[in-house]
Amino acid sequence: MSEGLIHTTAGNMMSSPLRIIDLLDFGRQQFPDQEIVSRRLEGDVHRYTYEACWQRSNQVAHALAKLGVQPGDCVASLAWNTHRHMELYYGVSGYGAILHTVNPRLFPEQIQYVIDHAQDTYIFVDLGFLGILEQIQNALPTVKGYIVLTDRQHMPETTLSNVHCYEDLLAPHATSFPWPDLHEDQASSLCYTSGTTGNPKGVLYSHRAMVLHAQATVSAALLDLRQDDVLLPMVAMYHASAWGAPYAAPLAGCKLVLPGAGMDGASMWSLIEAEKVTVGLGVPTIWLTLHNYLSEIDVTKTPLKRVCVGGAASPLGMVKTYAERYNVYWQPIWGMTETGPLATSLPPTPALMALPASERYTLQTTAGKAAFGVIMEIFDADDQPVPHDGETSGELRVKGPWICSQYYKNEDRSAFLQGWLATGDIAVIDRQGYMRVVDRKKDVIKSGGEWISSIEIENIVSAHPSVNECAVIGVKHEKWDERPLLLVVANKGVQVTADDIYKHLQGKIAKWWTPDAVEFVTELPKTGTGKVRKNELREQWFLHLESK
Amino acid sequence: MSEGLIHTTAGNMMSSPLRIIDLLDFGRQQFPDQEIVSRRLEGDVHRYTYEACWQRSNQVAHALAKLGVQPGDCVASLAWNTHRHMELYYGVSGYGAILHTVNPRLFPEQIQYVIDHAQDTYIFVDLGFLGILEQIQNALPTVKGYIVLTDRQHMPETTLSNVHCYEDLLAPHATSFPWPDLHEDQASSLCYTSGTTGNPKGVLYSHRAMVLHAQATVSAALLDLRQDDVLLPMVAMYHASAWGAPYAAPLAGCKLVLPGAGMDGASMWSLIEAEKVTVGLGVPTIWLTLHNYLSEIDVTKTPLKRVCVGGAASPLGMVKTYAERYNVYWQPIWGMTETGPLATSLPPTPALMALPASERYTLQTTAGKAAFGVIMEIFDADDQPVPHDGETSGELRVKGPWICSQYYKNEDRSAFLQGWLATGDIAVIDRQGYMRVVDRKKDVIKSGGEWISSIEIENIVSAHPSVNECAVIGVKHEKWDERPLLLVVANKGVQVTADDIYKHLQGKIAKWWTPDAVEFVTELPKTGTGKVRKNELREQWFLHLESK
Ligand SMILES: Nc1ncnc2c1ncn2[C@@H]1O[C@H](COP(=O)(O)OP(=O)(O)OP(=O)(O)O)[C@@H](O)[C@H]1O
Ligand SMILES: Nc1ncnc2c1ncn2[C@@H]1O[C@H](COP(=O)(O)OP(=O)(O)OP(=O)(O)O)[C@@H](O)[C@H]1O
Ligand SMILES: [Mg+2]
Ligand SMILES: [Mg+2]
Repeated sequence: MSEGLIHTTAGNMMSSPLRIIDLLDFGRQQFPDQEIVSRRLEGDVHRYTYEACWQRSNQVAHALAKLGVQPGDCVASLAWNTHRHMELYYGVSGYGAILHTVNPRLFPEQIQYVIDHAQDTYIFVDLGFLGILEQIQNALPTVKGYIVLTDRQHMPETTLSNVHCYEDLLAPHATSFPWPDLHEDQASSLCYTSGTTGNPKGVLYSHRAMVLHAQATVSAALLDLRQDDVLLPMVAMYHASAWGAPYAAPLAGCKLVLPGAGMDGASMWSLIEAEKVTVGLGVPTIWLTLHNYLSEIDVTKTPLKRVCVGGAASPLGMVKTYAERYNVYWQPIWGMTETGPLATSLPPTPALMALPASERYTLQTTAGKAAFGVIMEIFDADDQPVPHDGETSGELRVKGPWICSQYYKNEDRSAFLQGWLATGDIAVIDRQGYMRVVDRKKDVIKSGGEWISSIEIENIVSAHPSVNECAVIGVKHEKWDERPLLLVVANKGVQVTADDIYKHLQGKIAKWWTPDAVEFVTELPKTGTGKVRKNELREQWFLHLESK
Repeated sequence: MSEGLIHTTAGNMMSSPLRIIDLLDFGRQQFPDQEIVSRRLEGDVHRYTYEACWQRSNQVAHALAKLGVQPGDCVASLAWNTHRHMELYYGVSGYGAILHTVNPRLFPEQIQYVIDHAQDTYIFVDLGFLGILEQIQNALPTVKGYIVLTDRQHMPETTLSNVHCYEDLLAPHATSFPWPDLHEDQASSLCYTSGTTGNPKGVLYSHRAMVLHAQATVSAALLDLRQDDVLLPMVAMYHASAWGAPYAAPLAGCKLVLPGAGMDGASMWSLIEAEKVTVGLGVPTIWLTLHNYLSEIDVTKTPLKRVCVGGAASPLGMVKTYAERYNVYWQPIWGMTETGPLATSLPPTPALMALPASERYTLQTTAGKAAFGVIMEIFDADDQPVPHDGETSGELRVKGPWICSQYYKNEDRSAFLQGWLATGDIAVIDRQGYMRVVDRKKDVIKSGGEWISSIEIENIVSAHPSVNECAVIGVKHEKWDERPLLLVVANKGVQVTADDIYKHLQGKIAKWWTPDAVEFVTELPKTGTGKVRKNELREQWFLHLESK
């Protein structure tokens, strides 16, 4: 707790710290037989119980002690969503070390940078990612050894030095470890943002933050996870902790399904079908991938009840498709690596579901309301809060116990203003408290001194029946500085023209927002986390209007 | 956080404190129109929204400032469960003062003692409790004034000096208050245990403890409260904060129904029926009262889904009656003033409800499992943990962030041992983690050096169709030191003999546990909170076997 808070008389309550390890301990005590199902990198599907996961997490801690890892040390993972990665989430953090979940989709130089910046001592690595490390191993002075997340039988040839086999490392150890009495502000884990500009920046999470985030996540205001849910996180455990799913699942007692490296439509669907997944987590692109696959194989009946979707705005077209074609609730979420990541959502409450469909769909394209613990406000360029009228936009700023207060070992405080995190998102909040991101600061289109919301246009275009996905970017214009350009990926096998799109837009947006051109493309470039790379599109198309 | 916890690297998360006021702020933002319905002391039923409750809580804070109350001061309430008491819960604690909820059922000397011990500065008092204060006002040197919880029209004559009318006090103030940045360990509220022996002992709660307790309370492991629930706390807000209902309700967004002074069957039922109450909170006696009333008026259909029952063991007879006659799930809870109060429960999970009825009923007579955050263990007389085999009993000890670490301004540490709270309850824990209280240390029957569980016998006797309620106590015996005596209140209008009871007990308990005598009485003496006064029964019946 910081200084300056009023504190006259302390209550007489125990100072029991909030610890990550207690989440799994709770889960295995309350729901010992609940399952964790995991697609292994070895190819097969692995299943075990929370109790087994607990025992192996205890073995991980013993193994760390044996390796000489000290509390406070950083230990890296370079791994997909598997049960072994889950064991690291608990074993490493519970031990008092810091789990640095490295994003394998970063460029090799960036991977080298983050490992060096974090001073990682050991790296736990999946079979598929060994090559990345072999390439840079000579530039990793702090790394003492590597542990391959597999069994003896599958151990690969490798040029890495000091290599261990995960299963061999665990095997000799007891399944119960004397977990240390950690301070709840102790760092638990470290995640770097992808760094579309400049070097990646680290967010150093604490035990307290992750436990409070897990409680918020299972609560009805966010993911509303319950014992009879089957949760499939299609967001990577190396990206913002798979939105905290590994922490939330044991607290809720739900079955957890981990997709391994299988991020394609067919792999995803086979798990959803076989394991009767009820709740999916992922960026919009993932659900577009699933939809495209299900269209191909002509399936509309799924066990899914909800897909929880964040990381980018929810396009109206997808909201409708999931509701009307699949009878699945598209649940929007807003968050970022710097915010735990989950901060807002719009769960399918009885009141919401009672609304006329079109009204509900529109609400589903917002980001919903803030969870308990998260305070949010929007500010104008002079740092003044703007009205919550659903119209006035400004930068979104947030605060709360699981929001980042500074980047790890980084002097740049420009995103941390007077106790707020400045998110870089431009948003509106309406009278009822619904927040909507209208753009990212860096993606904003400034036409004749006024802003145009790329997200709002995309949202409307996405609802055209022939449109698969789309992006609006600002490109150079002689008179207006920038004007919007619309890029469209059409559905397979359909005929659609720019005119069709213009007709569809007519009357739905201000005239001067109408894109100056519509171009059809076969795909949109994406980041490792499945988001459209608007900076790449801008580079490619920047002079498009001039060349016309 | 206490010293001695491992803390090598702090995470970079904001140090936002957990504050009680944010619970109501969340509730009114997420569920502005959700209702709080309250039976007023003036006689009528009052209803308003969370938003209105929020605004008036802000007015309370302004009023406290005007009265000169300082952060850290104690401010007392002597009041039933009403919307005004709810406003004090938020206004007083949010302001940084400490709400001391005085139990009006204490003896006047005890009330004087606790007010003096807490050094209360002002007392907010309900119409019905003025007389108590008038009696002792000359012995309350720290009290500067009294606020009667009513409007001008209902202000009574009183001999109290410096008296304010609550509605007049609030009226002039703004509905928005600049809530202070409190430290989360700041004391929020104070509750004294009833003190069946010696002076009452104070439990000083903190903001952090109450917020974490509220999160646990709404979670599926405890009360599992949701937006579409209608919650009726039939436990007093002056007794362990009505089990935290005023804090949990806005977090869950459920409708809150406050019964005022109406603790009788008819008043209770009229609210349950009119407001469509789905979840009730109360001690077993309350649900016996409701059952007796419903039997009288011959009603079996109710809107209730669950009654959540703690403060005493759940008798098998009541569990069955509620299931089979009313189709209501009897949800056991364990807790005490010193533990927040809620710590364990057994919610109606799909798995539980799939069990054969008799197996389920038996589990419902346990206290369930610990919520996330609560650690529990049972210890023998040498302070050693005993096995979790469902047989070996010992003293229950608990720890966690909302468990008391010492009594307020009290040097006696006998209940606080090596970081645990020693509860004074004798319990067993089975292999699956279900806890069952078999007796209170002070109620234990020691026969020939061996323990007999009074609760277990009561549990079986309660299931006899002619038994309304019963109590087993230890009374003097020449040879065995103590032997059990069974006291029975029969159902109205039925004929039942001691022999019937003995037949019912046969084969269900060890022979030497069989009570030496069965006596029929018309009622059992109860505490202000509705628990059977076993100490009083013991005094009355202690020589019963000798006189025979
Ligand atoms: N519901 C949503 N609506 C619109 N945008 C969203 C939503 N949820 C998340 N976002 C966008 O995603 C961002 C957070 O993403 P994340 O932290 O995963 O990495 P990134 O910001 O895309 O990458 P980097 O910071 O490395 O450039 C938010 O700042 C916001 O722009
Ligand atoms: N589920 C339960 N089964 C058995 N006993 C219970 C249960 N829940 C609560 N109790 C009893 O209630 C006690 C806590 O009650 P509370 O704090 O309300 O006051 P009290 O202990 O009865 O009064 P005092 O401490 O002033 O004598 C526990 O210690 C336990 O003995
Ligand atoms: Mg970002
Ligand atoms: Mg007690």
